[in-house]
Amino acid sequence: MIVVMKPGATKEQIQHVVDVVNDYGLKDHVIYGTDRTVIACLGDKRSVDKGAIENAPMVEKVVPILAPYKMASLEVKREKSIIEIGPERFPLGSNKVGIIAGPCAVESREQLMASARAVKKAGCIGLRGGAFKPRTSPYSFQGMGEEGLKLLAEAREETGLAVVTEVIGLEQVEVVAKYADVLQVGARNMQHYPLLEALGKVDKPVLLKRGMSARLDEFLLAAEYIISAGNGKVILCERGIRTFEEYVRNTLPLTAVAELNDKTHLPVIVDPSHGTGHAHLVPSMSTAAVAAGADGLIIECHPDPEHATSDGAQSITPASLDKLMKRLKRVAQAIDRDL
Amino acid sequence: MIVVMKPGATKEQIQHVVDVVNDYGLKDHVIYGTDRTVIACLGDKRSVDKGAIENAPMVEKVVPILAPYKMASLEVKREKSIIEIGPERFPLGSNKVGIIAGPCAVESREQLMASARAVKKAGCIGLRGGAFKPRTSPYSFQGMGEEGLKLLAEAREETGLAVVTEVIGLEQVEVVAKYADVLQVGARNMQHYPLLEALGKVDKPVLLKRGMSARLDEFLLAAEYIISAGNGKVILCERGIRTFEEYVRNTLPLTAVAELNDKTHLPVIVDPSHGTGHAHLVPSMSTAAVAAGADGLIIECHPDPEHATSDGAQSITPASLDKLMKRLKRVAQAIDRDL
Amino acid sequence: MIVVMKPGATKEQIQHVVDVVNDYGLKDHVIYGTDRTVIACLGDKRSVDKGAIENAPMVEKVVPILAPYKMASLEVKREKSIIEIGPERFPLGSNKVGIIAGPCAVESREQLMASARAVKKAGCIGLRGGAFKPRTSPYSFQGMGEEGLKLLAEAREETGLAVVTEVIGLEQVEVVAKYADVLQVGARNMQHYPLLEALGKVDKPVLLKRGMSARLDEFLLAAEYIISAGNGKVILCERGIRTFEEYVRNTLPLTAVAELNDKTHLPVIVDPSHGTGHAHLVPSMSTAAVAAGADGLIIECHPDPEHATSDGAQSITPASLDKLMKRLKRVAQAIDRDL
Amino acid sequence: MIVVMKPGATKEQIQHVVDVVNDYGLKDHVIYGTDRTVIACLGDKRSVDKGAIENAPMVEKVVPILAPYKMASLEVKREKSIIEIGPERFPLGSNKVGIIAGPCAVESREQLMASARAVKKAGCIGLRGGAFKPRTSPYSFQGMGEEGLKLLAEAREETGLAVVTEVIGLEQVEVVAKYADVLQVGARNMQHYPLLEALGKVDKPVLLKRGMSARLDEFLLAAEYIISAGNGKVILCERGIRTFEEYVRNTLPLTAVAELNDKTHLPVIVDPSHGTGHAHLVPSMSTAAVAAGADGLIIECHPDPEHATSDGAQSITPASLDKLMKRLKRVAQAIDRDL
Repeated sequence: MIVVMKPGATKEQIQHVVDVVNDYGLKDHVIYGTDRTVIACLGDKRSVDKGAIENAPMVEKVVPILAPYKMASLEVKREKSIIEIGPERFPLGSNKVGIIAGPCAVESREQLMASARAVKKAGCIGLRGGAFKPRTSPYSFQGMGEEGLKLLAEAREETGLAVVTEVIGLEQVEVVAKYADVLQVGARNMQHYPLLEALGKVDKPVLLKRGMSARLDEFLLAAEYIISAGNGKVILCERGIRTFEEYVRNTLPLTAVAELNDKTHLPVIVDPSHGTGHAHLVPSMSTAAVAAGADGLIIECHPDPEHATSDGAQSITPASLDKLMKRLKRVAQAIDRDL
Repeated sequence: MIVVMKPGATKEQIQHVVDVVNDYGLKDHVIYGTDRTVIACLGDKRSVDKGAIENAPMVEKVVPILAPYKMASLEVKREKSIIEIGPERFPLGSNKVGIIAGPCAVESREQLMASARAVKKAGCIGLRGGAFKPRTSPYSFQGMGEEGLKLLAEAREETGLAVVTEVIGLEQVEVVAKYADVLQVGARNMQHYPLLEALGKVDKPVLLKRGMSARLDEFLLAAEYIISAGNGKVILCERGIRTFEEYVRNTLPLTAVAELNDKTHLPVIVDPSHGTGHAHLVPSMSTAAVAAGADGLIIECHPDPEHATSDGAQSITPASLDKLMKRLKRVAQAIDRDL
Repeated sequence: MIVVMKPGATKEQIQHVVDVVNDYGLKDHVIYGTDRTVIACLGDKRSVDKGAIENAPMVEKVVPILAPYKMASLEVKREKSIIEIGPERFPLGSNKVGIIAGPCAVESREQLMASARAVKKAGCIGLRGGAFKPRTSPYSFQGMGEEGLKLLAEAREETGLAVVTEVIGLEQVEVVAKYADVLQVGARNMQHYPLLEALGKVDKPVLLKRGMSARLDEFLLAAEYIISAGNGKVILCERGIRTFEEYVRNTLPLTAVAELNDKTHLPVIVDPSHGTGHAHLVPSMSTAAVAAGADGLIIECHPDPEHATSDGAQSITPASLDKLMKRLKRVAQAIDRDL
Repeated sequence: MIVVMKPGATKEQIQHVVDVVNDYGLKDHVIYGTDRTVIACLGDKRSVDKGAIENAPMVEKVVPILAPYKMASLEVKREKSIIEIGPERFPLGSNKVGIIAGPCAVESREQLMASARAVKKAGCIGLRGGAFKPRTSPYSFQGMGEEGLKLLAEAREETGLAVVTEVIGLEQVEVVAKYADVLQVGARNMQHYPLLEALGKVDKPVLLKRGMSARLDEFLLAAEYIISAGNGKVILCERGIRTFEEYVRNTLPLTAVAELNDKTHLPVIVDPSHGTGHAHLVPSMSTAAVAAGADGLIIECHPDPEHATSDGAQSITPASLDKLMKRLKRVAQAIDRDL
C-alpha cells in the first residue's frame, strides 16, 4: 500500500499517517519527493481498509499494491486448473474447448429433449437450462423448479451431456446439487456472499458469472469466497457488462478472457448470448471468444425461439448451432486447440 | 408494444409476425409507412417476452410501450406514499426531510453509543449500522451478527432513533426484523429475488438500494417484487452508479431523484456516502440531494473514521455532521420543506 | 511515479527498470516489500510516458503520483479565479452565482429578442445561443452563422447581457471573438487541441465544456492547453457524462463540481439542460447544482420549445425560468451565497 | 417516429400533438390502446428534432423509427464497399483481411525505417505513424509535423506499404493528403464536423475512428458527413470505448464489428492497441477481431517500446508482430478468408 500525501503536508501530518499505518501492523517507509511525500507501507495485510487511511488529514490517495485475492491467483498456483464436468468428465481448462448449449429455461419435456438431442448432435459437451429463473419482473415466468431439474437429469441420462443449471438462492443449493453437474451462479448473484459460501461446501463445479458491472478484482474475489470456503472447482464466465451501448443487451469485453488467463489459474468461458442479446450476433462473437482464448462457451439455443418464455431474442436455433460448431472447430484448430 | 420491421419485409414476413403477436394474445394494428412497416400490438400484457418476437425474420426492433411495473407506479397510486419509521413515527415522504446517519458497521458498544448520541444530537431521525456486512473480500470484517443488532436496539432505547440495518440473506430476515425498524437491502442484493419476496411478507419498512448498474425500470421492478408480495412500505435509495469516473467510488446521479418522483409514489432517499466514496464530497452532495427533492438521506458517520473497520474513507465525523445538519435545514426551508 | 514489479521479478529485471527510469532523467528509490518490489521514481517529469515503462518485463503497473496539469491546479494558485464577463462585468467565481440562459440555436431576430428579454427579466446575467451548431447529423439545422452572431450582439446592446456562444472550429475563432463575450467550446471539441491553442491566444473568457466521457484530469488538461497558450480566463462547465442510464440524455455528476472546487482555482458552472436532456428535470437539477457549489448555470430556454430547431426536449419556457430563478436565489442564500 | 402519450392524456392534448406533428410535415396515425394512446408519424423526415415534440404536454416519449443515416446504410447500397489503399491497391473490404501496423508516432528516420521494414516483412499492407499527434497533455511530444510525413512517404517508397496517418485539424488536410494514402480521423475528432466535411472533399480514403463514447448511430452519422460531402471511401475503425473497466485503457466491443457489418456497406477494421492499452492483450484481441469478421486491423508496433515517446505500453515488438501475423493468417483461413 502506498500513501500519497498532498503537497504542503506538514511533518506532524506525515507522522500522524505513519502512526495510523503502524496501528494497522504495517511498517512504514517514507520517501520525500520533489513535490510530494509518499509513504510505502510494508507487510502482507489484505484486510486493512485503505479508506480509513484516506480519511487522515492531507492524504491525497492510497494506492493498493497487492491483489486482494490469493487462492484464485496465478501467484499461488501457476498451472491452469482443469475441471472435469459431467458423466463423461470433460476436462474444462485443457487444450480442448468445451461448448455448453441449451434453452434459457426448461419449459417442457418436449422442448428440453428436443434441445438436448440437438445440442448433443452438434457436438457440445454440456446442456444448459434454467429450472429456477431469476426474472427482472415478478410477472415473468419463474421456472419449473424441481420438476425442471428432473427433466434435465433425464436429458443427461439419454445424451451423456453435463447438466449446467442455475441456483438462485441458498435454500436451493441442496436440491440443485442433487441433479446438476455444474451449479451456475447468475450475474445478479455474483456478490451474494451467503450463496457463494454455501457453494464452497458443495463438491461439484461452480460456474460463476461475472456481475454486469463487476471489476475483475471483484469477480476474482467472488471466486475466492467459494475457494476459501472449500471448493476449488470454480469456472469463471464472462457474460458481458453494462455500458452506454444500446444495440446490444450487454457489451462483451473479450479482453477479460485474456486478462483473466494472465491473472488466474481458473478456466474461463464466455456466454455470447447474454453477451450480445441478439441471435444474429452470437455466431461471430462465439468465434471471436474461442479465438481470444476462452476455454469454453455457454450458448442459448432453443428449438423455437419465437415462442420461448425467456431470452427468445438471443437464442439461436439448432440449425445455427450446428453450423456454428463446425466453424468453432476450425478456429480452435487454427490456434492449436480443438473442440 | 411496437414491432418495427426491416425495410424490404415481405407480406408473408409481416403476416408471420402478426401471427406470433396474436399467439401471445395481443391484437395487431399494422401501419404501412414510407420506408417501414410497423405493427402496434394492443393489450395489457406485461408478461410477453419481447425478445421472442425480435427473433422473427425481418424484425428490426421491438419497442415496449407500457412501463413494466404497476404497483410502484404513479398511475396506480397518485399521491405520495408516506412511510412512518421508528418509535417516533417519522413520516418519510412528507414535507419533512428525514436524515439517517451512523457508522458503516457496528463495531462495539462504545463506538455505536458514541455514534448514536452524536447522530441524535445533530437532529437526525434514524441510526444506521451494519450487523451483517456483505464484504467484497472474504478476508474483510464480516460484522458482529445478532450481537450487533442488540446494540442497535439498545441505542434506539436510549435515543429514540429508528434503527436501519441491512439484511444480506433470506435466512436473516427473521432475526433482523426482530430488532430493526427498517430493513435495508444492499445494492448488491437489489435483484436477489428470494430475499425481496421474503421482505414482502414482513410488516416493516424496507429500504431498497439501487443496484450499482440498475436501470430505473429494474429498480422499480425490484420494489414491485416486494410490494406484490404484500409489503407496500418500500423506501427507494439512490446510492450511486458505476461509470468510468475514477475520482469517486460511484457516480451519484441526482437526476434519479427527480425522475423517480415523476414515476413512483414511493419515498426516495439518497446515500451521499456510497454515492461519492470520499468524506470531503459528502457535505456538498448531501446539500444537493436535498435541493434536488430527496425525502431523506442516509449518511455514514463514525466517531473515528481513521480506525473504522469499513468505509473509513467516506465516513464523516460527528462534528461535520453537526455542521451539515444546520445547512441542510436552511436549504430544505429554501425549497419550502423542513428537516 | 511508482513502478510496481510483479512477484518473482529478478534482480536483473529490477535493474533493467531502474536503468529505464534513469534514462528518463528520474532518480530511482527501490523498496523491497514482502511480496513485491516497488520502485519510486523521483523528479518532476510530467512528460514521461508511463506506458513505456509498463512495457518492460515483469512490470505490473505504473502509478503516477503528480497530477498531470499544473497551471489549472490549486497548487499553483490557491485563491479562486474570478472571471469578469459581459458589459456589466459579472464576477464569475465570486460569491455571486451567475445564471446564463437562452435558446440552443439562434433561429431568428424575433425568437432571439423574445428570449433575451425573458432571460434579462428573470435576472440572468448572460445570454446563450448558438450561431454555429455542431450537429450529430448532417441533415440537421446547422445554424445562422455570422448573421446569428450579429443578432446576439444586438441583444446584448439592448439588454446588457453577456453573450455566450460556441466556436466549433479554428477558422471561426476570429469572427466569434468579434461578437461574443464568452467563447464556448462544446463537449465534442474538448480535446480538439488546435482549437484550444487558438483560444489560448484570444483575450476573452472561454467556457470549456467537459467532454461526455472525459475524466477530470483530461478536462483540466484541456483547460491547461488554453492557459498554457496564454489565456487564463477559463470557465469549466460540467454538462453530463455518458453512462448506461437511458432516462436521461446524459448523467449529471454534480460531484464533479465539489471535486473540481477541490482541485482547481477555475470557476465551475453546470449545464442542467444537456445534463438531463428533459425540461421536466431541469429545475430540480439547477437547484441541486447551486446547492452543490456551482458558480453558475447555463440553461436552455426557448419561447416555443415545441417548435425549436434543436434541443426542444430540454428547453424550458420563460415562465419556468422565471419561477426557477426565484428558487435559485433562496437556495443560494441558504448556503451563504447570492444570485 | 412514434409518439407515446402518457396515460390520462386528454383529447385536446392528443390533438395538440397531432397539430405539432402536422406542422413538421408528417402525417399522423393515432392508435388508441388499452392504457396509452400512440401517434405514429408517417413521412421520411430525418431532420425533425424529436425533442421538440417530447416537450408537448403529456407526451411520455418519442421513438424514432428510421435510422438517422442514409448513405452509409445497407439500405442504400447492399453490396460491401471495397476500398483500395496504397500503391499496391490492397482491396480493403474484400475477402482478404488487411493488417496495418507501425509506431504511434514518427520519431526519427531510424525508428520509422526499422518499423516499416519489420511491418513489411511480417506481411502487413499498411504502415501507420503519427506526424501530428493529438496529446491529452500540452506537455507531451506533439509530433514531427511535415517532416514526419516526408519520412512516411520515404518508407512507402522503399516498402510499397500504404501510409496511414492522422490529420488533427482542418488546416492540415492539404499537407497530409499530399503525403498519405489514408487519412485518419482520431477518436477525439469523430464529431469534429468541419474536419469531416473537409475530408469529404478529398479524393483519398478516410479511416474514421469511433469516438470513445460514440453510439453506433453517431459513428455512422460521422461517416455520413464525409460521404454526403462527396467522399464515399470511408473505413470505419472500432478502437474501444470508455467503460468502468480499469484493467484496460478502453473496452473493446467486438460486437460492433458484427453489428456494423449488419448495418453498413463500409469496411470495418479494429485497433486492438488502443482497444486494450496493453501489449500483452494485443495478440489475443487481434485474433479475436479477425475471427469476429473484421476487414482489417491497425496495430501499434515499435522497435523499442520502452523508449517510445507515446503509447509504449500498448506497442508490440516486431518479433511479436511476426508471430501474430502467422496466427492471424490461420484464423482468417479458418473462417474462409485470407490475409
